[in-house]
This record gives sequence, C-alpha cells and structure tokens, in this order.
Amino acid sequence: MMIDLFIIKVGGNVIDNPALLQSFLEKFAAIPGKKILIHGGGKIATRIGDKLGIESKYVDGRRITDADTIDVVTMVYGGLVNKQLVAKLQSHGCNAIGLTGADANIIPAVKRPVKEIDYGFVGDVYTEKLHTGPLKALLDTGVTPVFAPLTHDGNGQILNTNADTIASSLAIALSEHYSVRLIYCFEKKGVLRDSADDNAVINLINKEIYQQLLAEKILTDGILPKLQNAFGAIDNGVKEVLIGHADDVLSNTTPKVAGTLIC
Amino acid sequence: MMIDLFIIKVGGNVIDNPALLQSFLEKFAAIPGKKILIHGGGKIATRIGDKLGIESKYVDGRRITDADTIDVVTMVYGGLVNKQLVAKLQSHGCNAIGLTGADANIIPAVKRPVKEIDYGFVGDVYTEKLHTGPLKALLDTGVTPVFAPLTHDGNGQILNTNADTIASSLAIALSEHYSVRLIYCFEKKGVLRDSADDNAVINLINKEIYQQLLAEKILTDGILPKLQNAFGAIDNGVKEVLIGHADDVLSNTTPKVAGTLIC
Repeated sequence: MMIDLFIIKVGGNVIDNPALLQSFLEKFAAIPGKKILIHGGGKIATRIGDKLGIESKYVDGRRITDADTIDVVTMVYGGLVNKQLVAKLQSHGCNAIGLTGADANIIPAVKRPVKEIDYGFVGDVYTEKLHTGPLKALLDTGVTPVFAPLTHDGNGQILNTNADTIASSLAIALSEHYSVRLIYCFEKKGVLRDSADDNAVINLINKEIYQQLLAEKILTDGILPKLQNAFGAIDNGVKEVLIGHADDVLSNTTPKVAGTLIC
Repeated sequence: MMIDLFIIKVGGNVIDNPALLQSFLEKFAAIPGKKILIHGGGKIATRIGDKLGIESKYVDGRRITDADTIDVVTMVYGGLVNKQLVAKLQSHGCNAIGLTGADANIIPAVKRPVKEIDYGFVGDVYTEKLHTGPLKALLDTGVTPVFAPLTHDGNGQILNTNADTIASSLAIALSEHYSVRLIYCFEKKGVLRDSADDNAVINLINKEIYQQLLAEKILTDGILPKLQNAFGAIDNGVKEVLIGHADDVLSNTTPKVAGTLIC
C-alpha cells in the first residue's frame, strides 16, 4: 500500500532557526500529494512572555501553563508562528491552512488532572474522539493543514498540548482513511547505534530489532519516548514512522529513506 | 429566494465587552444553518503592544501597521482573539473554525501602495480573486468559519485588513453559491433618521430611499461609508445587508428584522 498522507512534526529547533526553517518549508511544500504539518512553539513564546512580564514557571523541569501563559501560547503558537508558517507556505505554492485542535473541534482534550503536579492549562488528547471529517474535506480539496500545539476542552478553554502527541493522534485517526507515514523531525539524523557517532544511524527498526536494542541498552533516554510513541502509532494503524533530521527526511518520499524508519 | 448564508461582522465594542460578547456568541451560535463570523480586533492589540513597548502610530487619525505592529496583530487578532472565540463558540455547540485570509489562500490582498501616507503592512483585498472552494467545503460540512481581520500578499507577508471589507468581500464572493444576508453589528440600533434619537431607526433603505436621505442630508459622516459599502455589496450580488446593534440583529432571522435592512 502506497503512502498517501504524510504527517510531519517539526520542533522548536527548526522554528527558531530562519535558515533551517526556510529550507524545511521549501522541502515540505515540494512533497507531492496530501500532507499535514504540526509545529512546536520554539523559544519565541518565552521571549514574548518575558517581555510581557509573565514568568515561565517550571516544576521538576516541566513547564507549567498558568492562565497568563495559556494566553501567551495561544497568541504565539496559534497566531504568530502558525500564521507566519501559513503565509510562507503559501508563497512556496503550498495551499496551507492554519489550525489548532479547537478549530472544527478536530482535537478534543481534557485538562490534565492535578496529581502531584498541577500542570495548569495542559490538555491530554482524547485520541479516540478526534473529528477528522472537516480535516478530510480540506485534504480532499487539496489544502494542507498546519497545526499549532493547542487543543480545547469543549467548555471554552484552550489547552497547551504536546506537538508530538498531536502528530501521533492525527496520524492514528487519519489511518482510517489514508496510508500514513508519520515523520518526526529532530536534531539528530535518526536513532543512533552509538550516541557519540552522529552518522551511526539505524535505518530500520521493527519490533524484533527494538527488543534487541532494548536488551543491548543501546537506546538513550532521549530517544526512548519517541520510539514508544512511534510503536504506539503503528499499533494503532499508522503505516510507518520516520525519525530524522529536518534536512534529510523530507527529501525522499520514496521507499529509500534517510533517517530511521519504524514499522 | 430564502437566505441560506449569514455573514456577520462584529467589532471591537463587542469583543472588548465580556457580557456583550457572551450574549452575542450565544445568539450567533443559535442561528440555524450556514454562517460566517468576521471579528475586529478591539483594544487588546493596543494594550499588548503597549506592554511589549511597541508604540501605536497614527497619521491623520489612521493607524500605521509597521513591522512590529503586524506581528502584534497577527498574534492578537489571529491567535488570542480568534482562537478564544472559536473555543467559546465550540462550548455553545457551534462547530467554529478560526481563519485568516492567508489560510487556504481564501483572501489574497495587495500591500496598500504608498501615496501621501505609508500605512505599512495594510492589505487591500483582491475582491475578485477570493478562493471560496475550501470555504464552501467547510460550510457544506457544517463548519462555521470565524475570520480575523488579516490577509496576505502571496509572498509570505501577513497584512492587516479592515474587517468590514473582509466581510463584504466574502459576502460578494459567496453570493455565487448562496443567497447571502450580510450583517454589520455596531453600537447603534440601525441607521437613524435623527442622530439624537437612538430609537429613530430607519427600518428599510433601498436605492430610492437612499437618494432621498442623501438629499435631505439626514445621514451622518459615520454611517455613510457603511451604506456605501452595503450598496457596493448589493450591486455585486449580495441579497441584503442588515445594520444594527449586536443585541438585536441576530435574534430574528425571519423577514421581520430589527435594525436597518438594505436591499
């Protein structure tokens, strides 16, 4: 089954770097057929929050989204970053439309329950409750959705949500209609066999190889959640997941791939 | 021909007033069938701009949109105001989707040429070049578009654009597919026969009555551009234009109307 939908998550390292972003958007725009972009926020939300006198709060290294912070990320992720990406993609001939999970109620979420830490206005996605109808209508009209990492609770509250999770949730929900390749762009060329050697990319990981890598303790703490997330997507219908550097993973959409392909 | 699309513009006086906004959104959500909302910005862009140390600049009473200001209005109109409206409408059972004119290239514009005044990043709409395909696909899926007053130039630049103009341009373009009532909410109950008497609403204005009113010099400077804009829309296929207070004009979508009906 040929891949007929590419869902690509790009993080702050690209958003914050104008040259890398420019090159990324050109390659993204050039991907033929149906595609969706999910972007992280980058450092600009912190910079604007600082200027507005809104302190970034962290507990155990995790950012807390209080009432002022959710307004800042709604402005910056949902407005500034998202609409600038849309306008830039339009200039590259890609008919982008900027969305959040609140739009067309595509990604309903629940405010994370307070246990040891109160994360504030952070949303956990109802993966099984996504509404893909309007999204499919847009994709079928030749439009390319671009998602900011925001959802909503259905009661009028915007929620800050992890962009990786939005990407995998969309990939899972849309696998009902399309054969999906989910692509995570990050700062490395892929999953590395040796974390000291940037070129020691493992090109293919299936469940058997994954078990071997776990047994050999080759996988670093940073990559483990990405692989768990990837296999979670595959277990729920996503055809394949590709992890690698933004410069490489969009260049070839043929079976031969740069980065690490998980299937 | 029955009205089958309502296009409603609401301004800063409603956006800035939580009680009025709440009541407005409830009434808007209750309108059956297809509808589009276009919102102005309100004072919050100025407030956030001030906090960020970005001075609001005016020439002859007209706001200038410099590079910093376009970023602020992209954040505030396209992000904060737009997405909060979407989340609130969702909570009232209205399946809203937040858009700018850059999204899906719906409203292409040109940066206003510099003559006596350089308005900066202000966009004049290419009314005849609107792309209504994706918009029609959304409306036909039961989704309600909510537009921020922003467009783009096709070369990657977001532009600040008058919300009244966006509303009339969308109404004209969509009149090809729908029988459209365009509604402008403002602070008065309608066009007044006596500007000192808030209840002296003229219920109906057609071209003949308009000529009479002009001859009698009854129309104030504030209302004239609105009427010119209204007749411009009607001359280009819009079925009817309704002008009145946000509290009244959404309550009855039957032939009997509050406010001033222009046709």
